[in-house]
Amino acid sequence: MTKIGVGILGFGTVGAGVAKGLLDNHEELLERTGIDIELRKIADLDITTDRGVSVPASVLTTDAMGVIHDPNVQIVVELIGGTTIAKTFVCEALKAGKPVVTANKKLLAEFGSEIFALARENETDVYFGASVGGGIPIIRSLRDGLVATKIEKLYGILNGTCNYILTAMEQEGAPFDVVLAKAQKLGFAEANPTLDVDGFDTLHKAAILAALAFGFSPDIHTLPVRGIRGTLEAQDITRALELGYRIKLLATMKRVNDGVELSVGPTLVPANGMMGSVSGVFNAAMVKSDMDDWTMFYGRGAGRLPTAATVVGDIAEVARSLAAGTHRAVTMPVASKPLAIKPAGDVFSRNYVRLSLRDEPGSLSTVTGIFSAHGVSILSAVQRGDSVDGFASVVFLTHEVRQSDLQAALTEIEAQACSAGTAVCLRIEHPGE
Amino acid sequence: MTKIGVGILGFGTVGAGVAKGLLDNHEELLERTGIDIELRKIADLDITTDRGVSVPASVLTTDAMGVIHDPNVQIVVELIGGTTIAKTFVCEALKAGKPVVTANKKLLAEFGSEIFALARENETDVYFGASVGGGIPIIRSLRDGLVATKIEKLYGILNGTCNYILTAMEQEGAPFDVVLAKAQKLGFAEANPTLDVDGFDTLHKAAILAALAFGFSPDIHTLPVRGIRGTLEAQDITRALELGYRIKLLATMKRVNDGVELSVGPTLVPANGMMGSVSGVFNAAMVKSDMDDWTMFYGRGAGRLPTAATVVGDIAEVARSLAAGTHRAVTMPVASKPLAIKPAGDVFSRNYVRLSLRDEPGSLSTVTGIFSAHGVSILSAVQRGDSVDGFASVVFLTHEVRQSDLQAALTEIEAQACSAGTAVCLRIEHPGE
Repeated sequence: MTKIGVGILGFGTVGAGVAKGLLDNHEELLERTGIDIELRKIADLDITTDRGVSVPASVLTTDAMGVIHDPNVQIVVELIGGTTIAKTFVCEALKAGKPVVTANKKLLAEFGSEIFALARENETDVYFGASVGGGIPIIRSLRDGLVATKIEKLYGILNGTCNYILTAMEQEGAPFDVVLAKAQKLGFAEANPTLDVDGFDTLHKAAILAALAFGFSPDIHTLPVRGIRGTLEAQDITRALELGYRIKLLATMKRVNDGVELSVGPTLVPANGMMGSVSGVFNAAMVKSDMDDWTMFYGRGAGRLPTAATVVGDIAEVARSLAAGTHRAVTMPVASKPLAIKPAGDVFSRNYVRLSLRDEPGSLSTVTGIFSAHGVSILSAVQRGDSVDGFASVVFLTHEVRQSDLQAALTEIEAQACSAGTAVCLRIEHPGE
Repeated sequence: MTKIGVGILGFGTVGAGVAKGLLDNHEELLERTGIDIELRKIADLDITTDRGVSVPASVLTTDAMGVIHDPNVQIVVELIGGTTIAKTFVCEALKAGKPVVTANKKLLAEFGSEIFALARENETDVYFGASVGGGIPIIRSLRDGLVATKIEKLYGILNGTCNYILTAMEQEGAPFDVVLAKAQKLGFAEANPTLDVDGFDTLHKAAILAALAFGFSPDIHTLPVRGIRGTLEAQDITRALELGYRIKLLATMKRVNDGVELSVGPTLVPANGMMGSVSGVFNAAMVKSDMDDWTMFYGRGAGRLPTAATVVGDIAEVARSLAAGTHRAVTMPVASKPLAIKPAGDVFSRNYVRLSLRDEPGSLSTVTGIFSAHGVSILSAVQRGDSVDGFASVVFLTHEVRQSDLQAALTEIEAQACSAGTAVCLRIEHPGE
């Protein structure tokens, strides 16, 4: 019977879940892998707080470096988060030739190339199944199941906090601030919600998926990202629903002739479609490859046990490799010809545009004239409700138009006397079509 | 550069798709696995028909045994189907120590134990990702991603033909026979549709999923199976929808205290839920484990390219193992304590029951009295439409009741003068709750 020792760095929510999984389901793991996977060490600065999982005292330590270099630890699990000491520890483990399992999306999104290169140099592996989508096997599927396919399109609802907020805004007809406060109270949103609601968490995850799908690591600092704060109002959710759509914070990736389109932003998707049916804290990803029709993965994108289940799945796979005296030849594919990211302005899409227009003859004709002059073709224009202070809210749906043309048109429209405030402009996508 | 040779047995729809995948996406495979995976041989009785994929003449042969024993073939891909010569070839390859990739669900459902034992004896592997769900990575996820979890519930819409027929019956309000004839014309149903519409295909797939989820191979000949032919009428689809449900041919598996519940039959699921949203030829599976909340996999369950994509994914994984000089320790988990299948009569569920009752005072009271005497608790009873020839159609929804009690009640009700014909009785499940 092969024995493999595991050392966990970080005894927080997920760390405790992984410890629990390794201890409680030890028998299942043994039956299914034929390997005795033993939790040998857990390092954390705080080893006295009760985490709701019973661990022998000898397993706990405050010495992370000691865990990494412990000869009884063959797999290092990094669950500290962040990009400072987590990076130091991950690199140290890889240099020691020990495989690393991590759920740290920020670390991989920012330093993935460096970390995967280090793993290759030291002939070991980095597993990161839980870095995107928690309990959803999207990483594993892109890496293994779709290994022989060209990914053409990928859509993701990748942030549970945003999806919870958007669902609550729809169901309660409440504004963003009210719902955010409630989500914070319930523990679904952080005290500082920027990472979630401004789209950065989704962007980090999208960058990892893009690396797997298209074989290169995009520079996340240059990618277009919009969140759900300040980009839409509760009335947009209502208006979208009247038109048969739901608004989701969507990561959109498409292979186009000469490169890849990648963006994160609030997006209208058909309310009755599979992505439109994803509500609350759940996440989902839809993938279209050249070899397959649409595939969808759905589940809880975060939380102690879902994330821990994926981490333990990674541990089991690394243990199998170690028991076989090998490691995966490639952990992150590297394309021979990296694809170019298409500039945001050159992307074509359908759009939802809401304008506040003076309720008088001529307003609509001025606006549609400007749209037309910029080559923005309008599918429909709908006014709802009474005008307030002489201004009415009008929603336009566009055909597929170049983003730079649409933005130029909106800038010109916003400068007109007949227009008040800023336009709300959201993409429309039809995942699954 | 490691070279691995692949030999395909069976040059039908899927075989041609796999050949196309290996040839067209050779570069992607090379980049992502670091292995030169080469299509060396394809054996079929018919090697002259054009399959829409261009293969060198030297690759084609009618000698399957020659392919299996070809020293340049390291992986044998069985795509013949059935359980006669396919079984002979699979066993021959395993005895020769060569890993086998197969999409043959019937073979695994009937002879899985024997085949996996043979693989273990010869220290090689059987990969079967495409045997269930075509392009959906449900097998891979159960085998790897959920390796450390206890599966509690699993629901599957596993037959695209049935889902297509049920969707069309709803959308067109047409009876089963009419829709089946249309599906046959369109190529979505076989000339002899028994395997699909009577539930056996779903049962074969359910047996494979059960083996992965619960660690033992159930005897498929003893499992309860009902299809969509003769078990419901078009009006049941309408009535269900009025009550907020859609009818799906559902495989249901639940871990219960003392064993496992496993059945296949037409089942009502919430129309607005994720499973209720799966329409047309698409398949889906929803899984709940002790470590994770509900996870769902959705995609095209059949078809040349989706199935081929999964087969090629399996080939890539076997090639990685071979290149590393190893094989997976366990291909199919074997539980130390096999769980007992719960007898169908002992299963508790909610139910939809439609009765044809004489439209006169006393009918309802007779029926509800019999239900009550058998401990069948009724949630609601709804009559719709006018009575025909003095009989009215009444739908009852039950609370959770023991199936044997319900069947006893229905037998007694059917014998009453106030009742005409046979009751339509369908389970109600709420996947995701």
